[in-house]
Amino acid sequence: MFTINIVSLLGLIAAFCTTFAFVPQAIRIIKTRHTKDLSLGMYIIFSVGVFLWLIYGFLQMDIPIMLANFVTFIFSFTILIMKLKYK
Amino acid sequence: MFTINIVSLLGLIAAFCTTFAFVPQAIRIIKTRHTKDLSLGMYIIFSVGVFLWLIYGFLQMDIPIMLANFVTFIFSFTILIMKLKYK
Repeated sequence: MFTINIVSLLGLIAAFCTTFAFVPQAIRIIKTRHTKDLSLGMYIIFSVGVFLWLIYGFLQMDIPIMLANFVTFIFSFTILIMKLKYK
Repeated sequence: MFTINIVSLLGLIAAFCTTFAFVPQAIRIIKTRHTKDLSLGMYIIFSVGVFLWLIYGFLQMDIPIMLANFVTFIFSFTILIMKLKYK
């Protein structure tokens, strides 16, 4: 039977939060078309970092790291593209 | 002798990027005092997530997870406070 301990559950909730936190930011930009206060440097460095985590997860064959960082990369990179589009 | 393999080095660079990416955003807010385009929801959810990662690292006695998330929490929470201060 599949069981999950409390520590793993905590890790899953943490991963969920740090991944999906970028959704309200993306929605805000789609609504307002304003990105002036967002740091371009932040989204470049963050997207590069998440992409490196993705490669790391792939090399370690660690499915949770791959999956979480794949989704986070999509959100982070989308915000980066919108930052470049809506100056 | 202390040695580090290429995969671990990749993980370290990834962690460095996703941690310190928030620094240019914090600097930008300190300079401009503007946070209107930043999503409050993002920084609340992200700060909660990083704090849960910190507890997870503590419970797992995983020093790199504790350390990386402690630093990221300071940056993320600082931006959250500034978002609340500079509406």
